[in-house]
Amino acid sequence: MILDICPSPALYPFYRQEHDTLIVVDIFRASTTMCAMLHHGAAAIIPVADIDQARAYKEKGFLVGAERHTRKCDFADCGNSPFDYTPERVHGREVVFTTTNGTRAIEQGKDTRELLIGSFSNIGALTRHCLHTTNRIVILCAGWHNRINLEDTLFGGAFAELLSAQSDVTIGSDAVRIAQLLWQRAKADPPVFLKASDHYARLLANGAEGDAAYCLSPDTVSVVPVYHRADKKIRAFR
Amino acid sequence: MILDICPSPALYPFYRQEHDTLIVVDIFRASTTMCAMLHHGAAAIIPVADIDQARAYKEKGFLVGAERHTRKCDFADCGNSPFDYTPERVHGREVVFTTTNGTRAIEQGKDTRELLIGSFSNIGALTRHCLHTTNRIVILCAGWHNRINLEDTLFGGAFAELLSAQSDVTIGSDAVRIAQLLWQRAKADPPVFLKASDHYARLLANGAEGDAAYCLSPDTVSVVPVYHRADKKIRAFR
Repeated sequence: MILDICPSPALYPFYRQEHDTLIVVDIFRASTTMCAMLHHGAAAIIPVADIDQARAYKEKGFLVGAERHTRKCDFADCGNSPFDYTPERVHGREVVFTTTNGTRAIEQGKDTRELLIGSFSNIGALTRHCLHTTNRIVILCAGWHNRINLEDTLFGGAFAELLSAQSDVTIGSDAVRIAQLLWQRAKADPPVFLKASDHYARLLANGAEGDAAYCLSPDTVSVVPVYHRADKKIRAFR
Repeated sequence: MILDICPSPALYPFYRQEHDTLIVVDIFRASTTMCAMLHHGAAAIIPVADIDQARAYKEKGFLVGAERHTRKCDFADCGNSPFDYTPERVHGREVVFTTTNGTRAIEQGKDTRELLIGSFSNIGALTRHCLHTTNRIVILCAGWHNRINLEDTLFGGAFAELLSAQSDVTIGSDAVRIAQLLWQRAKADPPVFLKASDHYARLLANGAEGDAAYCLSPDTVSVVPVYHRADKKIRAFR
């Protein structure tokens, strides 16, 4: 089983292979929030790349989550906090969703063999799902405006450790080694490790410390979100 | 003094700012080799992006260094080993030079305010040179076919430590934090730390273990190579 990590959406063209299972991660917060939506019973997520598309869906009566630069967009029902998507709000509904970095990563990866959404909250379920694939597995870090970040790379290291404990894993490239080293250093206390990171500071400045804690808590949900190419929607794997 | 690290040439558009002092590094081996050329008295380096250009220079009588995929190109005088460029060979001459990754990084950065070439061999001289700049300093890692690598990122961490010891340094982004953590882990014995890396393995497979050792030895030269936009040549700073 080959595992690689692509540290920025803009680099995926240089990492891409024909048979990839791609795991999009945007730890703070889009991928964690998508896991929460499906865990709380959303029928599907409709990821859209730009604000105008999201606004058009809103006008048609859809439930819309939209965030730019860490803040909820005015016209939207919800922002990018996992706590916005309560069971009462999302159960049985389709959620239109656009965020600064997360939806861009999905856009880059949408033509791969399989596209999954990963976060610390579903890391165990995700690992079990991946144990049976014959594809190469690639963690695609959403990053920050195509720049690399600590938290997404760190998730790659955590996932590598978990997968290696249950299967023979071949390291695809140096990016995996870098992520493993970060995780070795961080795993005793990830929130403390990430306190200095760019995005953690940004979340604190926006009063989202609770979000950050939730986003770093492992195995709180058991859902594996899968992107369906046919209708461009994300649903829980069944 | 702001320091950032761009981990791949393909990401520089997302890191670029107007007043950057860019330090191109390709530790294994192009940037180390360029430092060796100028240290041994080469009048200038003419970096070229493609093989056909290099061959055309060769036909005109130039001294040409050309490498692709870790091997010297047949038509060239030298490859990408620093040991190819002895004083007897290069003193007073211009050297045309093309490599798999290094020249691509120079191409990406050639319009910046200042473009320097860095390696462990000139890290001390480079740090002293940078102490007086008012520009933001960005380490541009050449990587491997636009994928990130351990050794160039590691150099970023070593440079950050050295610069921080002599000046107040503001960290530009998470890439610097990642590089610093790698360097903390590696600095007791960089060759041992890098033994598992992709490119170290590639060098060993091509019989270039001596090159690798040289490329990781700090402060063996005192030259700072500077790219001159006017004639597209690299010369020692004076």
